[in-house]
Amino acid sequence: MDVTPLIQAADTKILLVVMDGLGGYADAQHGTELEEANTPNLDRLAAEGVCGLAEPVGPGITPGSGPGHLGLFGYDPETFELGRGALSAAGLDFALRAGDVAARGNLCTLAPDGTIADRRAGRIPDPEAAAVVEKLQAGVRLEGAEVFFRHEREHRVLVVLRGEGLEPNVGDTDPQQTGVAPLEPAVHDPGSKRTAELVTELGAQVRRILADEPKANYLLLRGFDTHRELPSFADRYGLRAAAVAIYPMYRGIARLLGMDVLGRPADLDEQLDILRDAWDDHDYFFLHHKYTDSAGEDGDRARKVAAIERLDAVVPALRTLGGSGPDVVAVTGDHATPSQMAAHSWHPVPTLLWSERCGRDEVDRYGERWCLRGGLGIRPMKTLMPIMLANAGRLQKYGA
Amino acid sequence: MDVTPLIQAADTKILLVVMDGLGGYADAQHGTELEEANTPNLDRLAAEGVCGLAEPVGPGITPGSGPGHLGLFGYDPETFELGRGALSAAGLDFALRAGDVAARGNLCTLAPDGTIADRRAGRIPDPEAAAVVEKLQAGVRLEGAEVFFRHEREHRVLVVLRGEGLEPNVGDTDPQQTGVAPLEPAVHDPGSKRTAELVTELGAQVRRILADEPKANYLLLRGFDTHRELPSFADRYGLRAAAVAIYPMYRGIARLLGMDVLGRPADLDEQLDILRDAWDDHDYFFLHHKYTDSAGEDGDRARKVAAIERLDAVVPALRTLGGSGPDVVAVTGDHATPSQMAAHSWHPVPTLLWSERCGRDEVDRYGERWCLRGGLGIRPMKTLMPIMLANAGRLQKYGA
Repeated sequence: MDVTPLIQAADTKILLVVMDGLGGYADAQHGTELEEANTPNLDRLAAEGVCGLAEPVGPGITPGSGPGHLGLFGYDPETFELGRGALSAAGLDFALRAGDVAARGNLCTLAPDGTIADRRAGRIPDPEAAAVVEKLQAGVRLEGAEVFFRHEREHRVLVVLRGEGLEPNVGDTDPQQTGVAPLEPAVHDPGSKRTAELVTELGAQVRRILADEPKANYLLLRGFDTHRELPSFADRYGLRAAAVAIYPMYRGIARLLGMDVLGRPADLDEQLDILRDAWDDHDYFFLHHKYTDSAGEDGDRARKVAAIERLDAVVPALRTLGGSGPDVVAVTGDHATPSQMAAHSWHPVPTLLWSERCGRDEVDRYGERWCLRGGLGIRPMKTLMPIMLANAGRLQKYGA
Repeated sequence: MDVTPLIQAADTKILLVVMDGLGGYADAQHGTELEEANTPNLDRLAAEGVCGLAEPVGPGITPGSGPGHLGLFGYDPETFELGRGALSAAGLDFALRAGDVAARGNLCTLAPDGTIADRRAGRIPDPEAAAVVEKLQAGVRLEGAEVFFRHEREHRVLVVLRGEGLEPNVGDTDPQQTGVAPLEPAVHDPGSKRTAELVTELGAQVRRILADEPKANYLLLRGFDTHRELPSFADRYGLRAAAVAIYPMYRGIARLLGMDVLGRPADLDEQLDILRDAWDDHDYFFLHHKYTDSAGEDGDRARKVAAIERLDAVVPALRTLGGSGPDVVAVTGDHATPSQMAAHSWHPVPTLLWSERCGRDEVDRYGERWCLRGGLGIRPMKTLMPIMLANAGRLQKYGA
């Protein structure tokens, strides 16, 4: 239900900790990464709060980062849409104009036979990638349309097409697997034919311009989208919201929702410092921890476990932010990234809620198998936000 | 889904036992009130049936009594609306006419500085309150509109405005907190301007007339509403439904749904007697137990526990009603009223279902932490009614 009419002011602070791609699945050899991680501080929080499992979009649905985060923020991911291109643009402070079509690009390595050998060009270092992107910006020329290339991080590039008559309903050229050739852009409606033609021409030019590059000799595109307006956190929840994230895309989505995107942190310690500085001026804090997901995507179980343990280590500092700490804390993820799959997945995400009034269950360890017995049950992720608001005393009674 | 097309006749009886405000939450010091209560009879029923937790309106949503009860009766509280004034009128047998605007009044105590010292005028005893209400009925005169004051119980008063051109979309004058002044009635649409003016004038006269009262020197208003038609229990479910409730509001909602509201019981024993007398002539019985909620609202944990135990004591008698007893029994609440909060809350409500066909789970104690492991899971309250109907053999197969 729409909680906006029920919003009331309160002098309370909410902290949402998102470990990106946190969820996993157990198999015959292993528990999940979270189950195997040593997390004494999260376990204590679980013991003092309630746990459960959350489905980010729906049963069996593997979410991209956009829908995953919309669910976390209480925006129904089936109602609200965010293309990856629009997200990337927002994260780079690139001002999309009405009619622009944005896409997410991956610098990749093509084998001599034209199939994809590495979808991330060996996670090419930033300086090398930036030079490649400059080459593209200088070299690509499209008839009747402008094109902008902006380097994000590592292999990630934002691509924006600007011109008359461009619609975004074009299929990805990124097949999201190796060993196959890049895709031709499918045309999903008649209005998007021109865009598809430009994308095809762009691909041909990129291939020529980058032919001699050792790692990044092609650019895969996905998530074509235009700019959309979303209701802001302030309008929807009456919250002064702050985001503390390292990676552009998560900064981007926070900005699209009207959050204050704070600082330019490089690591978790800097994120903590920023939280401390911003504590008095905000009511809601979104702390994004990326490294669980990147380790999972690399299929690196040990590194994902270590990334979880790194977050665990700052929990005591989080619980005392501003002296008395937040009134409501939730710890969860935007989706699962099981290291067995080295990819996002549909598995429910372990979720922990703590407040003075959240109640208690019998769960005293944070991990999928324990969360399953928790007081939150298995629920859609979008329901977490109203429960956090309720725990923060920010929702009035419904009806007389 | 709409079960009405599936309804079939059956010679079965359903008993719904509602402990108002039953739910609670555990904290570091205590289990919930229900967990701490000694309830051997409910525990036996739980052992022989299935348990779960129900969210009355939605995750994080704190229901008023209207939406809470609509959910219990299988009417989606997001679709069907009941204003508190309309409820109160129905409970007092006051015949609202089309165009009347009804509101719920609280006799309250204003401090010398005009702020609210006690929202319930010290829960003023009935005879004192009745005298105050008579004074208001005799003294208040509005230009171009009639006004009716009807005493309910303790501090509760029904106020009805009758006249030309009155719309109900006016804000509460009850701020629902102490230490602040009563509110001016907000005007939510142009058609309600006249109502707001009358409410303001009424407030000024009440203040004058009650100036010398020691306890009840003002009247707070909330839940302005007109009469609405709701589909009846008979039309929706084909049930001859009976309500056995002490408090007017619950009698009111039952009457709005077309239930027979039986007798004028003063306590649980009289409620039992009424159930026994009515057994043969009805298929569905709504037994409402108020004292769990009033104790919770007073923040009185021990009294709430005692109110639960009082209900437990009559369970054997309920199970043998009419000799062989009901075919289906559900025990639950309309919402949580944790004594720590002394107010309604959003916490899920422990729910118990018993029938010959309901199945069994491993829960053998009735209480939140045990219900969490029960066969009903965590579910919206509105889903309880179809499950009760199914257990009563009153729903046909859906589809061929």
